[in-house]
Amino acid sequence: MPILRQDVSTKEWVIIATERAKRPAQFVRPESDRRAEAETKFCPFCPGNEDKTPPEVLAYRKDTPPNSEGWWVRVIPNKFAALTPQGSLHRRHDLDFFPAMDSVGVHEVIVESPAHDLPIALMEEKQAAEILFAYRERFRKLREDSAWKAIIIFENHGERAGTSLLHPHSQLVATPMVPRDIRLRFEVAQEYYDDTGNCIYCVMLQKELEAKARIVGESYYFVAFHPFASRSPFETWILPRHHNSSFGSVEDDELRDFAAILRQQLRKLYFALNDPDYNFIIHAAPLEDEDKDYYLWHVQILPRLTTIAGFELGSGIYINAALPEATAAFIREARVDAKCLI
Amino acid sequence: MPILRQDVSTKEWVIIATERAKRPAQFVRPESDRRAEAETKFCPFCPGNEDKTPPEVLAYRKDTPPNSEGWWVRVIPNKFAALTPQGSLHRRHDLDFFPAMDSVGVHEVIVESPAHDLPIALMEEKQAAEILFAYRERFRKLREDSAWKAIIIFENHGERAGTSLLHPHSQLVATPMVPRDIRLRFEVAQEYYDDTGNCIYCVMLQKELEAKARIVGESYYFVAFHPFASRSPFETWILPRHHNSSFGSVEDDELRDFAAILRQQLRKLYFALNDPDYNFIIHAAPLEDEDKDYYLWHVQILPRLTTIAGFELGSGIYINAALPEATAAFIREARVDAKCLI
Repeated sequence: MPILRQDVSTKEWVIIATERAKRPAQFVRPESDRRAEAETKFCPFCPGNEDKTPPEVLAYRKDTPPNSEGWWVRVIPNKFAALTPQGSLHRRHDLDFFPAMDSVGVHEVIVESPAHDLPIALMEEKQAAEILFAYRERFRKLREDSAWKAIIIFENHGERAGTSLLHPHSQLVATPMVPRDIRLRFEVAQEYYDDTGNCIYCVMLQKELEAKARIVGESYYFVAFHPFASRSPFETWILPRHHNSSFGSVEDDELRDFAAILRQQLRKLYFALNDPDYNFIIHAAPLEDEDKDYYLWHVQILPRLTTIAGFELGSGIYINAALPEATAAFIREARVDAKCLI
Repeated sequence: MPILRQDVSTKEWVIIATERAKRPAQFVRPESDRRAEAETKFCPFCPGNEDKTPPEVLAYRKDTPPNSEGWWVRVIPNKFAALTPQGSLHRRHDLDFFPAMDSVGVHEVIVESPAHDLPIALMEEKQAAEILFAYRERFRKLREDSAWKAIIIFENHGERAGTSLLHPHSQLVATPMVPRDIRLRFEVAQEYYDDTGNCIYCVMLQKELEAKARIVGESYYFVAFHPFASRSPFETWILPRHHNSSFGSVEDDELRDFAAILRQQLRKLYFALNDPDYNFIIHAAPLEDEDKDYYLWHVQILPRLTTIAGFELGSGIYINAALPEATAAFIREARVDAKCLI
């Protein structure tokens, strides 16, 4: 019999459709053609093509001039930016009714390494940490500008996740308003805090540790689990053990530890499911509320193994064809093949 | 310069990314292989295979026994139901924290015609009306049971919209709670009503009629338009001209008129974009609030021409690569080919 489960942090329900449940192994990607494609297309993110992108805003490099080779992480404005720094912050109403404004903001691309086909799953831990340091550096820099109300950092990996560029890259967007989804998440956490005096994410983490069955990884500072109300098979959350609402204030050693567990989980998914398409998203509080105790920054990894259909679009209720307890057990057992490291 | 626009009915923003804007014609599907596939697979929805589905709950047929051939619209329980009528309505909390319940509800499939490859776009108007009559009949029947709090009717057309079955069918789901998304839409409408005394959808419709540029079709009872804050290219809404929050209370002649304009818009999309994948969703008020003046039932058609990526999943903000005014002009000009009618 299928089960309805509610995500306490969004108040959204999901259906765990055990009637149509698949065994975790059925989600393995049949085969990967990413490498073949990798050989054929021009790549603007590869070393030597620095002049094909807008000038970098940050690069970790050694003794080479900006916008030349020699970098190991490079951050550039998105050439096809959805938001641009120019424009007015003024909100207008067309016909006194339709709210609109210039799409002001920041839209950057973080090129994760010089290697064209080296996803985080196959990187050395040290390189993964460098990416995270770049995220944090841009996050800290951008939050200084009071025009930006929220910063979203995310990666699209694979076509089903929304990217056609193979070269591993992530993106950062700073918005001139708090997006509705982020506001709603924050409000749920705030109300829970008002009611109980506790951070809802910290309590969730304690309950997940107590339940044990959905835990997939632990490090000194972090815990990874397949959440109780997973929207899709192998959805993975990584939460800090110690309360901190701001991604910008994460300390160096904590950030290195985070890079390690993020890489570990992506690596598990890579070998267990044969390089699935996925998105990951760093969730953080609205920038003006970063100093409050209500919210915990965290990461959600969403493998794109199923299609968002009419029911999800019409109700917000996701139908998940796998039990999180089953996918978590599968991931705990999954072997990662060290030899495949590029 | 890209524009941010807010959907007043959800308070969600969208980015109209004019920097990467495509001309409407660029969204045409390169070619259709649906027909080829149609020949090869066993189809449980075709006449003669009635015993391969659960027994019908409704069928429009003439002088033939239930679950035999001779029907023109047939409604059956979903064989792989995400919600089932058996089970308890009791909500429990695992570990005193994680809310869960049996996935009780109703999950039905409406087989839209006996023809295996006849989408609504290619049907006669009369057949489209019969489908709508079946929706309304099931809607009316199911709302009599106070266990169900919301009814969502939707169609998934094509793989990118979440279906692999070609034979045109739609689905109906009755849920034992008001889904969060529906509650939030209703709350926005309710608050607008409290503030202004008006239905926000009725005002939106008046403003769209005033703006003219996004209107794509009008009938006696309905208006179709590409909304100001379209989430994706060619998103189409159909709103009744006269206030009515309940789909269940639509009168016969109004329903026939609705079938005609829905078919017209699907037909325009079919010929203009070469049979694109799409979802359509009938939005209605929560069942307990059906008699209130706050909300207007309406339909949203969402062609699935782009991918929901990390930014959308992390912020709720969609990036739309086409201007609704441009797609609306394209659709107004689009010729439908009467000869292609099956």
